Amino acid sequence: MNNTFGTLFAITTFGESHGPALGVTIDGLPAGLTMDPDFIQSEMDRRRPGQSAATTARKEADKIEILSGVFEGKTTGTPLAMLIRNADQHSADYSRIAATYRPGHADITFDQKFGFRDYRGGGRSSGRETASRVAAGAVAKLLLKHYGVDVRACAASIGNVSGDINKIDWSTVEQNPVRCGDPSAADAMAAVIESAAKDLDSIGGTVYAEITGLPAGLGEPVFDKFDALLAHAIFSIGGVKGLEIGSGFSAAEKRGSENNDPITPEGFATNNAGGILGGISNGDKVTFRVAVKPTPSIYKEQQTIEKATGNATSLVIKGRHDPCLIPRIVPVVEAMAAIVAADLLLRAKTSKLD
Amino acid sequence: MNNTFGTLFAITTFGESHGPALGVTIDGLPAGLTMDPDFIQSEMDRRRPGQSAATTARKEADKIEILSGVFEGKTTGTPLAMLIRNADQHSADYSRIAATYRPGHADITFDQKFGFRDYRGGGRSSGRETASRVAAGAVAKLLLKHYGVDVRACAASIGNVSGDINKIDWSTVEQNPVRCGDPSAADAMAAVIESAAKDLDSIGGTVYAEITGLPAGLGEPVFDKFDALLAHAIFSIGGVKGLEIGSGFSAAEKRGSENNDPITPEGFATNNAGGILGGISNGDKVTFRVAVKPTPSIYKEQQTIEKATGNATSLVIKGRHDPCLIPRIVPVVEAMAAIVAADLLLRAKTSKLD
Amino acid sequence: MNNTFGTLFAITTFGESHGPALGVTIDGLPAGLTMDPDFIQSEMDRRRPGQSAATTARKEADKIEILSGVFEGKTTGTPLAMLIRNADQHSADYSRIAATYRPGHADITFDQKFGFRDYRGGGRSSGRETASRVAAGAVAKLLLKHYGVDVRACAASIGNVSGDINKIDWSTVEQNPVRCGDPSAADAMAAVIESAAKDLDSIGGTVYAEITGLPAGLGEPVFDKFDALLAHAIFSIGGVKGLEIGSGFSAAEKRGSENNDPITPEGFATNNAGGILGGISNGDKVTFRVAVKPTPSIYKEQQTIEKATGNATSLVIKGRHDPCLIPRIVPVVEAMAAIVAADLLLRAKTSKLD
Amino acid sequence: MNNTFGTLFAITTFGESHGPALGVTIDGLPAGLTMDPDFIQSEMDRRRPGQSAATTARKEADKIEILSGVFEGKTTGTPLAMLIRNADQHSADYSRIAATYRPGHADITFDQKFGFRDYRGGGRSSGRETASRVAAGAVAKLLLKHYGVDVRACAASIGNVSGDINKIDWSTVEQNPVRCGDPSAADAMAAVIESAAKDLDSIGGTVYAEITGLPAGLGEPVFDKFDALLAHAIFSIGGVKGLEIGSGFSAAEKRGSENNDPITPEGFATNNAGGILGGISNGDKVTFRVAVKPTPSIYKEQQTIEKATGNATSLVIKGRHDPCLIPRIVPVVEAMAAIVAADLLLRAKTSKLD
Repeated sequence: MNNTFGTLFAITTFGESHGPALGVTIDGLPAGLTMDPDFIQSEMDRRRPGQSAATTARKEADKIEILSGVFEGKTTGTPLAMLIRNADQHSADYSRIAATYRPGHADITFDQKFGFRDYRGGGRSSGRETASRVAAGAVAKLLLKHYGVDVRACAASIGNVSGDINKIDWSTVEQNPVRCGDPSAADAMAAVIESAAKDLDSIGGTVYAEITGLPAGLGEPVFDKFDALLAHAIFSIGGVKGLEIGSGFSAAEKRGSENNDPITPEGFATNNAGGILGGISNGDKVTFRVAVKPTPSIYKEQQTIEKATGNATSLVIKGRHDPCLIPRIVPVVEAMAAIVAADLLLRAKTSKLD
Repeated sequence: MNNTFGTLFAITTFGESHGPALGVTIDGLPAGLTMDPDFIQSEMDRRRPGQSAATTARKEADKIEILSGVFEGKTTGTPLAMLIRNADQHSADYSRIAATYRPGHADITFDQKFGFRDYRGGGRSSGRETASRVAAGAVAKLLLKHYGVDVRACAASIGNVSGDINKIDWSTVEQNPVRCGDPSAADAMAAVIESAAKDLDSIGGTVYAEITGLPAGLGEPVFDKFDALLAHAIFSIGGVKGLEIGSGFSAAEKRGSENNDPITPEGFATNNAGGILGGISNGDKVTFRVAVKPTPSIYKEQQTIEKATGNATSLVIKGRHDPCLIPRIVPVVEAMAAIVAADLLLRAKTSKLD
Repeated sequence: MNNTFGTLFAITTFGESHGPALGVTIDGLPAGLTMDPDFIQSEMDRRRPGQSAATTARKEADKIEILSGVFEGKTTGTPLAMLIRNADQHSADYSRIAATYRPGHADITFDQKFGFRDYRGGGRSSGRETASRVAAGAVAKLLLKHYGVDVRACAASIGNVSGDINKIDWSTVEQNPVRCGDPSAADAMAAVIESAAKDLDSIGGTVYAEITGLPAGLGEPVFDKFDALLAHAIFSIGGVKGLEIGSGFSAAEKRGSENNDPITPEGFATNNAGGILGGISNGDKVTFRVAVKPTPSIYKEQQTIEKATGNATSLVIKGRHDPCLIPRIVPVVEAMAAIVAADLLLRAKTSKLD
Repeated sequence: MNNTFGTLFAITTFGESHGPALGVTIDGLPAGLTMDPDFIQSEMDRRRPGQSAATTARKEADKIEILSGVFEGKTTGTPLAMLIRNADQHSADYSRIAATYRPGHADITFDQKFGFRDYRGGGRSSGRETASRVAAGAVAKLLLKHYGVDVRACAASIGNVSGDINKIDWSTVEQNPVRCGDPSAADAMAAVIESAAKDLDSIGGTVYAEITGLPAGLGEPVFDKFDALLAHAIFSIGGVKGLEIGSGFSAAEKRGSENNDPITPEGFATNNAGGILGGISNGDKVTFRVAVKPTPSIYKEQQTIEKATGNATSLVIKGRHDPCLIPRIVPVVEAMAAIVAADLLLRAKTSKLD
């Protein structure tokens, strides 16, 4: 199933950028969880377009409608479905995008795979698809909260400006337009985006994320390791090109005596493992870092081919785009991590005989 | 299903380090593929222990027995099962490992998850588990070969010694004990391992891998993107801490105009995408880089706790281990990538109406 | 995943009897299939309430809205989602149903499983849930039609009145209110329903169904046999208590020489197999018969218990119900059979190496 | 996945009639269950050939070897794999079976699906495949026993001789060669088989089965209803042509007031539901009846076609077969029912928030 993710907490999404609506069905949610539609909406608001100068001008309220699975304020154990109507589909002229392929986009591969494509705003390959994920992720967060688990993320770098991960002040993340975690780097990050935008260009960045309060014992030994499912989830977000868990690429240069986390009566002395040993959460904080490519839609002229003939041509993309994906990808990263954690939390209920 | 990976080309594995046997059942293999047991065995030989000074001294022939699914030399469309008997389980004294937790290992998390563990050689969390993957990967490679697809990997760095990815000579990879791709770096890599081993320690490294000959159109748009399944597969290998696809983390510092691959009548001008756009193969080479931590088993004294009391203690691990995981992880990375490519190749058969 | 059915043609449904809406997401539909919303609506109309005196008086237009997956009249290869708004939820007094358990219904088991239930109209366990299935089944039928496959069903018996399966005139099925296949039995069947209704009671019946035009080779040898998936699908419809495929229970009294279908150059001489051998379609017509219990909602006084105390009490159910499930279950049986056939048709695309 | 069955308690099987071995991997078994290899073997012995005059003369010890997943006598939470070596593959002359198609068998459909087949003893479509199921079912029974659940089955009829289901004496089932439940009918059933065998023919029959001690709340409301999964499991057994749950086909002739089970403070007054309401176990006994066709292999001459030419020919099957499938299908029915119950028991662990 191509559009379903998860085993026990399983989400199925649908919707295109310029279709009537997007939506998600969450299957496997235990009965009895108090639903908080305001919280879901607040998560949607973190992802929605038009929040600031650093994001696209498309205006979407992204209002969530719960269609099923909740009765008298609590989940019933049956599927929770949510609908998000598209509102601001510009009646743009898509003829140029229909006739060529935008570099860095899925236009060409959709044609290769399906024979044709919904070219309006990227169709199903649009970042707009992640609205469904954030809605589902908000529900996953509510489930996790019940068990004392929290998921949070922030911008770690934009272009060549990095924040210090050791100086993250989580209370400030939503107070700056780039969602920088280290307040001292926020302005410089915003400036990098502004500069790219002024040049009709875009810029990449990294996200830092962590899951706290996780019980030990989540994750399955071989293929469905916690880190493996997290990697699946994170790389399923458009634009992701890299992932590190715990010490990440730096582990490749270390010796075992440096990288192993000593075990003490008070817990692990360090956390190079990123909270996961042998694919199973060890009770420590799960930490990871995500590399995101620059927005492929830029206003500069680009080299491409005509769909009909295969001949060389050039393309100047019009329309509304984020000059940097980082600020709005932060809640998407959180959502996907929350979905993985919720799923593994439920799966762990049958690890031991009771 | 915790020990199954794949949707149409689906493998299910079993086996522990010191149990009677390991094995794998491959479901979904089309009928009519000529089986080549010698090729499977040769892949097993690339992974098996005791190949060189750079690897553990455990002696295992890792002889493959095909139990089903092949008739008169061809696959029948029914499950192909393979068995690998364990031979050289040392009748070691495991009492110390049973009573404590090896840092950097899954000992503690298995206890947290399951309440107890098979402590002999790490049980199911042993790297020995990957023998089943290499057997399945060899069959995936045979299927891919039928369609002109090839998967290959090599050591890209050991500790702080890196080869040049642009200077890889694939014909030399199997001729040096570290499986270095850039022949000019092979000796230095071997020296880094030797030095770590001499210090009773271990060392990390990175693997570079590529899939060539892939048709365009493989991968599913949202959750089962080619890169997402690849990430799932690669992070499911014990010891992996990082993954980059195409331009990877360097994309995070780039502008869109640099990172987008211009499309020309002759194909993509560059390959920052790593052969995948919007989660779908674009016909170009899929490229990725994997960060592997140093072997957690080292001969140095380490700080840990007593299982029974939680009190502080120290542990000196005995037994046989690879001082560096890279040389033997190379065929495992290839195997997992081949399994993903084979699965997506079959899944793509129903993308378009025929 | 509890609310998903199918492997390659996979449907995920949601919705309760008295919630805002019902819906379904179809994943795995190949790109390029011409969509026919009028046909989908006509199938919905066959299932919807209020068609005749033989069915419930609830008024629902069951208007289908396609939310995604179709562009310029064709499927895109991305999920096709459909929404059905509930319109005629009576603002009834459900306090009595909330306080007791209706015999023959899932009221008590929902409480046992989930701790509480949406008691309005049966919530998720209502027959109204099948609207989503019929919508998905209509799409499956369109896919099957492309391959020359047709699915059809009719009432075979109501109470003790049986039609003759050898005298089915498919052109008349939609012309009588009970969907009887044998025109000569239609009036008698209607009379049985009327008589039960007059007695404040309900009546059971059987459905005969067949799939024609199926290519040979669909179905997987062991667990996902064509008949096994069909049985799963049919028994997942509320009220089904029995299923026969081909010669069914009569096979249990036969000898092999009677029950085996001789193979001739022109095909099978008989069809006791019901078109399936070893779980795989043999190119012949797939035939099956379904036993459906009498509607559990009746207007007679029934013995039950108080939810709060477990004490004995009696219940007289009010509201609107079908006195016989058969007329409206016919399109549901067709829908589920079509979904199975569509799924196996896609799955068969990778049986052989191409 | 074609050869995997189950969601949380998931079995994957492999093996052909005349290959080296059969086997099964059970994934999802909770850690800590005491394993009882003698019990598993005793279940294998109930299914194995050569038990009595009523069964085939093939001699197979069907000795189970546990390959993984058990440590110090308890399940570890990792996959439990079991191997069954084939021993008595007759070096028969299969040239005639290779050149034609046995009526009532999957020979023709395997060719249609896969392009060729392993014709030795039916290959994967042989009833011998069920050995893996019985092994897995025995483990499921051990898990169920831990929760107080028991599964048992017996012959209910052979040909036109029926036992009385109300007179079943479970203590006698294993004491008569046909596994008849009603001792007074056992001899007559045996005589029916003997008579068919003497006529070089075979005979069908029915199996009655029940699951006792089940907690209420097992089964998922829509597609994975308890009865739906049971139907999937039972129809996946070769030779099954019909299934009734609870009142079964007789429900189709009843009125609601007769078929509804009144609810009393002491439980349900009757059990027409067969222990399942709305797809969820209600705490009562789950009861079902299975129709099994006569063994398709008979010694009489039969009409068929030549594979190479499609021309008419006749076939006399040689070799060893059961004249009636019932005696040996009884433990297979139990095994599949136990696997379903075990799976749903684990799945129910996350129905409610804890």
